[in-house]
Amino acid sequence: MAHKHGHGRDRIQFANAEDKQEFSKYPTKAGRRSLSRSMSQSSTDSYSSAASYTDSSDDETSPRDKAQVNTLGSSDFCVKNIKQAEFGRREIEIAEQDMSALISLRKRAQGEKPLAGAKIVGCTHITAQTAVLLETLVALGAQCRWTACNIYSTQNEVAAALAEIGVPVFAWKGESEDDFWWCIDRCVNTEGWQANMILDDGGDLTHWVYKKYPSVFKKVRGIVEESVTGVHRLYQLSKAGKLCVPAMNVNDSVTKQKFDNLYCCRESILDGLKRTTDIMFGGKQVVVCGYGEVGKGCCTALKALGAIVCITEIDPICALQACMDGFRVVKLSEVIRQMDVVITCTGNKNVVTREQLDRMKNGCIVCNMGHSNTEIDVASLRSPELTWERVRSQVDHIIWPDGKRVVLLAEGRLLNLSCSTVPTFVLSITATTQALALIELFNAPEGRYKQDVYLLPKKMDEYVASLHLPNFDAHLTELTDEQAKYMGLNKNGPFKPNYYRY
Amino acid sequence: MAHKHGHGRDRIQFANAEDKQEFSKYPTKAGRRSLSRSMSQSSTDSYSSAASYTDSSDDETSPRDKAQVNTLGSSDFCVKNIKQAEFGRREIEIAEQDMSALISLRKRAQGEKPLAGAKIVGCTHITAQTAVLLETLVALGAQCRWTACNIYSTQNEVAAALAEIGVPVFAWKGESEDDFWWCIDRCVNTEGWQANMILDDGGDLTHWVYKKYPSVFKKVRGIVEESVTGVHRLYQLSKAGKLCVPAMNVNDSVTKQKFDNLYCCRESILDGLKRTTDIMFGGKQVVVCGYGEVGKGCCTALKALGAIVCITEIDPICALQACMDGFRVVKLSEVIRQMDVVITCTGNKNVVTREQLDRMKNGCIVCNMGHSNTEIDVASLRSPELTWERVRSQVDHIIWPDGKRVVLLAEGRLLNLSCSTVPTFVLSITATTQALALIELFNAPEGRYKQDVYLLPKKMDEYVASLHLPNFDAHLTELTDEQAKYMGLNKNGPFKPNYYRY
Amino acid sequence: MAHKHGHGRDRIQFANAEDKQEFSKYPTKAGRRSLSRSMSQSSTDSYSSAASYTDSSDDETSPRDKAQVNTLGSSDFCVKNIKQAEFGRREIEIAEQDMSALISLRKRAQGEKPLAGAKIVGCTHITAQTAVLLETLVALGAQCRWTACNIYSTQNEVAAALAEIGVPVFAWKGESEDDFWWCIDRCVNTEGWQANMILDDGGDLTHWVYKKYPSVFKKVRGIVEESVTGVHRLYQLSKAGKLCVPAMNVNDSVTKQKFDNLYCCRESILDGLKRTTDIMFGGKQVVVCGYGEVGKGCCTALKALGAIVCITEIDPICALQACMDGFRVVKLSEVIRQMDVVITCTGNKNVVTREQLDRMKNGCIVCNMGHSNTEIDVASLRSPELTWERVRSQVDHIIWPDGKRVVLLAEGRLLNLSCSTVPTFVLSITATTQALALIELFNAPEGRYKQDVYLLPKKMDEYVASLHLPNFDAHLTELTDEQAKYMGLNKNGPFKPNYYRY
Amino acid sequence: MAHKHGHGRDRIQFANAEDKQEFSKYPTKAGRRSLSRSMSQSSTDSYSSAASYTDSSDDETSPRDKAQVNTLGSSDFCVKNIKQAEFGRREIEIAEQDMSALISLRKRAQGEKPLAGAKIVGCTHITAQTAVLLETLVALGAQCRWTACNIYSTQNEVAAALAEIGVPVFAWKGESEDDFWWCIDRCVNTEGWQANMILDDGGDLTHWVYKKYPSVFKKVRGIVEESVTGVHRLYQLSKAGKLCVPAMNVNDSVTKQKFDNLYCCRESILDGLKRTTDIMFGGKQVVVCGYGEVGKGCCTALKALGAIVCITEIDPICALQACMDGFRVVKLSEVIRQMDVVITCTGNKNVVTREQLDRMKNGCIVCNMGHSNTEIDVASLRSPELTWERVRSQVDHIIWPDGKRVVLLAEGRLLNLSCSTVPTFVLSITATTQALALIELFNAPEGRYKQDVYLLPKKMDEYVASLHLPNFDAHLTELTDEQAKYMGLNKNGPFKPNYYRY
Repeated sequence: MAHKHGHGRDRIQFANAEDKQEFSKYPTKAGRRSLSRSMSQSSTDSYSSAASYTDSSDDETSPRDKAQVNTLGSSDFCVKNIKQAEFGRREIEIAEQDMSALISLRKRAQGEKPLAGAKIVGCTHITAQTAVLLETLVALGAQCRWTACNIYSTQNEVAAALAEIGVPVFAWKGESEDDFWWCIDRCVNTEGWQANMILDDGGDLTHWVYKKYPSVFKKVRGIVEESVTGVHRLYQLSKAGKLCVPAMNVNDSVTKQKFDNLYCCRESILDGLKRTTDIMFGGKQVVVCGYGEVGKGCCTALKALGAIVCITEIDPICALQACMDGFRVVKLSEVIRQMDVVITCTGNKNVVTREQLDRMKNGCIVCNMGHSNTEIDVASLRSPELTWERVRSQVDHIIWPDGKRVVLLAEGRLLNLSCSTVPTFVLSITATTQALALIELFNAPEGRYKQDVYLLPKKMDEYVASLHLPNFDAHLTELTDEQAKYMGLNKNGPFKPNYYRY
Repeated sequence: MAHKHGHGRDRIQFANAEDKQEFSKYPTKAGRRSLSRSMSQSSTDSYSSAASYTDSSDDETSPRDKAQVNTLGSSDFCVKNIKQAEFGRREIEIAEQDMSALISLRKRAQGEKPLAGAKIVGCTHITAQTAVLLETLVALGAQCRWTACNIYSTQNEVAAALAEIGVPVFAWKGESEDDFWWCIDRCVNTEGWQANMILDDGGDLTHWVYKKYPSVFKKVRGIVEESVTGVHRLYQLSKAGKLCVPAMNVNDSVTKQKFDNLYCCRESILDGLKRTTDIMFGGKQVVVCGYGEVGKGCCTALKALGAIVCITEIDPICALQACMDGFRVVKLSEVIRQMDVVITCTGNKNVVTREQLDRMKNGCIVCNMGHSNTEIDVASLRSPELTWERVRSQVDHIIWPDGKRVVLLAEGRLLNLSCSTVPTFVLSITATTQALALIELFNAPEGRYKQDVYLLPKKMDEYVASLHLPNFDAHLTELTDEQAKYMGLNKNGPFKPNYYRY
Repeated sequence: MAHKHGHGRDRIQFANAEDKQEFSKYPTKAGRRSLSRSMSQSSTDSYSSAASYTDSSDDETSPRDKAQVNTLGSSDFCVKNIKQAEFGRREIEIAEQDMSALISLRKRAQGEKPLAGAKIVGCTHITAQTAVLLETLVALGAQCRWTACNIYSTQNEVAAALAEIGVPVFAWKGESEDDFWWCIDRCVNTEGWQANMILDDGGDLTHWVYKKYPSVFKKVRGIVEESVTGVHRLYQLSKAGKLCVPAMNVNDSVTKQKFDNLYCCRESILDGLKRTTDIMFGGKQVVVCGYGEVGKGCCTALKALGAIVCITEIDPICALQACMDGFRVVKLSEVIRQMDVVITCTGNKNVVTREQLDRMKNGCIVCNMGHSNTEIDVASLRSPELTWERVRSQVDHIIWPDGKRVVLLAEGRLLNLSCSTVPTFVLSITATTQALALIELFNAPEGRYKQDVYLLPKKMDEYVASLHLPNFDAHLTELTDEQAKYMGLNKNGPFKPNYYRY
Repeated sequence: MAHKHGHGRDRIQFANAEDKQEFSKYPTKAGRRSLSRSMSQSSTDSYSSAASYTDSSDDETSPRDKAQVNTLGSSDFCVKNIKQAEFGRREIEIAEQDMSALISLRKRAQGEKPLAGAKIVGCTHITAQTAVLLETLVALGAQCRWTACNIYSTQNEVAAALAEIGVPVFAWKGESEDDFWWCIDRCVNTEGWQANMILDDGGDLTHWVYKKYPSVFKKVRGIVEESVTGVHRLYQLSKAGKLCVPAMNVNDSVTKQKFDNLYCCRESILDGLKRTTDIMFGGKQVVVCGYGEVGKGCCTALKALGAIVCITEIDPICALQACMDGFRVVKLSEVIRQMDVVITCTGNKNVVTREQLDRMKNGCIVCNMGHSNTEIDVASLRSPELTWERVRSQVDHIIWPDGKRVVLLAEGRLLNLSCSTVPTFVLSITATTQALALIELFNAPEGRYKQDVYLLPKKMDEYVASLHLPNFDAHLTELTDEQAKYMGLNKNGPFKPNYYRY
């Protein structure tokens, strides 16, 4: 199999993807996985663009065949090239500058070492931002072993920097499927060290431990899972009565969701369109399919830059919101002929059909912000009467027999992941959420968490937010005793009921 | 108790609601009635400005002492002057134009008469908008008897118009407390007719039936309650195990909440400030205390008009949202000296203290969008060293010994209710929600609802929204079968999980 | 003839108005006058809403028939009631608070008394704001005699306050035409005092002096004129070679224009619509005819509040701007059926025709922000098949035979003048501009100004702006010597070439 | 001399332009060429990013040494490689899709061939967009000879495509200075063909003809010049009484200015910052120096994306505009410590000094949108105590001894040219303006234009705008005869007085 993992949310559909879709009982924005037999979809947002700086070394030797030792004398790791450690360290230092929440957490919690005794096995994208998380966990007392959740996303020099300071890391860019599982196994299966916490992104590590090391699995104190897919798998395990460990779903925390969707997409729609097409936004007619958080972000930004935006919706409440926000609510077929840009953000499939593609005007740009690659019926465009012309990376012109061109971005995969970058600040939100979830599960008194999947407690969600306020020089107001009593609140939060809509 | 209750802007937390009700000394166009010990707070938002057009007839005779007969020959009503019916009819017709959702509901449901057999006793503000609701209920098959939830808010001519077509209405503007309970009693206690549904706004009617007619209460099929206070009382009854009837809390429906708070306040903050002060918004320094839905609405509007807005918050998540939306997050004391306008939207008390009022600059405008009259410490301003000067209706200058003036609006009561109007469209949302809640409770199969307080089912919430889309010429998209299956959704909704944040 | 002067820009059209329109060679935003034989149109924006607070005293005696003496013993004035002086003084004091630029000018220039020797005869609206201007002129050394430019706009108590401190004022609310000219004459024609400066608003005073007192006219050092009409008359005089005095057109100063049009209308469109119709802006379909400064202000505000706005234009450059700002550019006939609100801002006539009124949907609101009352063909609505129903002050429902209602505001006159107020801050800009123009003309060295009409020098325009910056706590940056040299600028301005577009 | 010249953003004030030209040491995608003593600055905005697609062929032979023949048998051209013509043709075809105004102009004017007889010698950037212009001129009847105004900006394949269809083109990417003048000379100095029109960008061609071929120069019917520098040189010639030919300054046309500055910068500030730094805009504190059109564009965009923006200004009118638009007006030194981003748009020098750079916080981003490279005192940063680290193309970290990093973009050169692209639509505006100016000058009746520098007539400016309206499906309204008469306008424009501010 050539491609195991695509990049982040933006995954390649395998032959049997359709069959697997039925497992998705809980439709969400960030979409469901398309599963290969054994590797699931990792988190959508923690895959930094920084990976692009990674060297494409011409060293063809597999890291598994190399003998490498770090300056501490250890060889308990497997990375591309331990000598890149210094360059990786610099990348980590730069990332630290934008992740002051984690640095602040290190300082606040370092004295008490809340993770002393924690033995964490982790499987995430390995980037400079992850390294800041990992080194925070270590600073708080944890022992860690780490591997990559994606065969392409590892920054080799960062992996080297982590190995250099003694973290057993098993990951490199361009792993084979066999390498992938070998690395996971090397993390888990080591003498004299048994993991008691799991930090996962996609569920592969959890799955591996569950299947191969059931005795380890049973003794784990908690699992923290970030991705939609991994969370879905945990809910399935739980439903099947096989989840014998408390797990925390950090994907659905309020703060993370707002940043992954509304705030991030508000910027990345502009960035992605500019980098690929150099389009001028002013005066452009744009239809955005779906007015959820992603759609709201896209619409806000485009309207602000002078585009004329209309939306399509299936949900009357969201449609009414769109009305009140100043967007016409239309059916796609009513407007498709006039549009300059068509953007999908529904999480659904075949939102843009071949029939609609046929009716678009010359030069219409089509792209997807919402879901793997199902929203635009790209397959229907791979037919003999149409000519594909790649004009830039991620930009194809599909040419109709009459000369009409439709500009398809990222082949219908996620524009924001393919053609723009995720700001470190967003990754900081996620990483801080993960760190707090680990601390919470590791320190929770017996009985607080059962063998089930939990959302991050609101108070921790609030704490994540509060750790990021100094970035904006934002000053919180404290309740007086009298006010707290009047509101029936604890002065330290949580401040809102669980169902509060923000 | 599990139930925290008291969400939304008009949150009230207290041991016994009655004691805490504040006494509005200065009834205003939109103000609440002056409360007796046992009259609680009705909804704040369904009270139309239209009341201001009501004649202040010089007829001093109490309606209770008049013998009136409508043209149908009935005298089963008590209104100010049945002869005003024609004028009231015209008001109702004008209101109908902006309440097409109810008219549409009449048409859709008229064939099947979903309220045939329903005997509804209602206690609401009596305005043209309520009349449209009431006549809708009648069109759908219900028999209704009606009274007012507020001693000041009745539009006499509308009451007359309803009485004229045969609806037993007992209400007039300027009732005494005794009148108030007499009217309620006349609605409930009538020979040969026993209510099986209650539509209440404030809980007074419910309370009366519960206390005085327990046998009627037990046979009621359902209660629909709109106000925060009434809902609170229902939760208390339920908690005490005394609620023997299913009740529906329509206050917290998604659609209603968004319109009552975000959308309505986005406009009314501008309207209220302009009507009272003729302020120019451009360049004004404004601090908004609280970044919930009301605060978000205020901030959005003021920023759009060129004001420089900063906010205060106690909740770090809301504070982070404010940052991302481009507002500085400050403590009030840091900025109070520079501000041109101070707006409270917290639902808390003493958010603006005397100390802060002392530090405001000359000409600073202070007003409240958030909660009855607790947010600004107005009481502290009623001290001998300060001079109050009323410069317009709802506008006081408080003058410090050094000549500094602070401009206090509506004496710290709700600006949007005191100094602006509620658009009929918002009232239409509420009325439609009430109608659907009545239909749902009346027609629900045995067992769907227990003796508890329920939120409006999401599907009905969506239906309310969909009935209002034609106002905007908005066209919903329908899921294909394939798409519905892929999403795991019913094509007719509900489309979102309950915890969806919109 | 009963009515000579309407209110401000918003004038009554006389029978022969059409004939006179041809004089308007220079179409401008604020529109051309509609002339009665002898009284022209005064400034459009200096007519404060404050006039509405003026008492409508039941004293029917004409002021001309009353003997009044102020406390200084002088009777050289004619006002409604000198005893109202104290109340007027308070109004002036309140106005001073928002006119700090003039107060600041007083302080800066008081030592040097730049108007010492100036004998200014003035004809303006007489409001609290004008009084602040007038008292500033006095503080700077001028002697003043004053009258009203509009028979309705005088605030009697303010006139009294001015008379009380010794300013010869001849004005009251509700003058007859004869009174009007009598008052002007009393200002000019007084023994032992000969005006050497004229401050005019509408050109009537200038015309009177020119016609009746040519010898005075020739010795005047300068005329300052604020209104479009007055400026037009001056240009005509100049063209005819009859202007023997330098005149300054302060109507077209950059700062004044921006505030009168863009900034003011951005707020007043919302205010005017709310006060008259209580409309909810969110989701409303609005067409704005004309995308000049007024149109830009209206569009910006409505879009920001969630309306869906399209525009009509005749000028392709403005149309292209509208495109880039995100507004669809349409012909009115294309969209008229769908619109909820139609707003005219063109300065042209018959922009909304009867045919288009016939095609509007039920409930459509029609109003004018642009020009006296020519933009909407209101005359065409005064036909027998249509019913007019006045539902509020300034709000008429025009009812078609099929029951359709069109909501006409202010009978097609200027919405912002009829139904909202002009903020004192805008009046402060105007008054400061007038004061500086007087100082400039009075002090200019021989030869700087010829017998022509001049625009305010850019440097003075900049100075007006700078005097208003403290209101916003705005801090200007100063050029270094090196920077000034590099830019070829004087460090004190002017900073831009004359044609700069701002 | 009182030199007015050089307004707008790219203002240059100096005694002799040549001495002051800055030397771009690091030619970039969009950068200007490294200038020799006599090569002046060409237009900054017509230089398309498309150049980046140009091959960097390894063919080292100078085009001057190659013998090339096109398929028509002609060798009257000199390009890198005539065989690239087909690829260039495709580039031109793609550009045509976004330049429909020119295509439309071709169609409208093709019958009458308004340029029949015109012999145009041109010196511009040679890109696909220029080719569309050039082929339009040919379609309208002109004969053209062409060369490049910049030694780096030629797209070789486009030059080949032009040569292939028979246009004598002399240009390639990477010319030496000697090549540069040789190419210009080959354009002008050819047997049997004498130019009668000049289209210039930077003034070098004009200078060459003026100096070397004075007899040709005298017979030229008109010069069209696009760049600030070229326009400046023309004004100097004119002032010196040496301009014997009418010249048209198309740089200052309304439409071009609005697009080059406001509309273009509104988008490119976001694009440039994202591509270089991946910054998240939400919540960032930004100071924009200068609130002219460029500053307005930057501020609007950043505010819309959630940044908190303040501005600095020297001009009180612009400062007051900033206030009314909701931006705090500050001195740079007051806020410099808190800023996340500092952007200069003043056209001045040393706006950001070393002292201010010293006070910036860690991670502060500094960039220039306003003027070549004078606004930020970059030279002061090249001192031994500071370390420069290039972290990406166009991104340097300047590191202070204490570890503080300031992020400098494009070494202080124009961000929008260095780090983002100019949309084809903007280039279309410019090219259409040039074409119309050529038509106007070539066809103007004797005497309409003297030996002076003219602005594009407003009517033509309006025509440029109107040709671009179909891109937005915008529909202009036509004046009725009655309306035109009322307004005193010709129905076909011009619609505004020259001083109108748009």
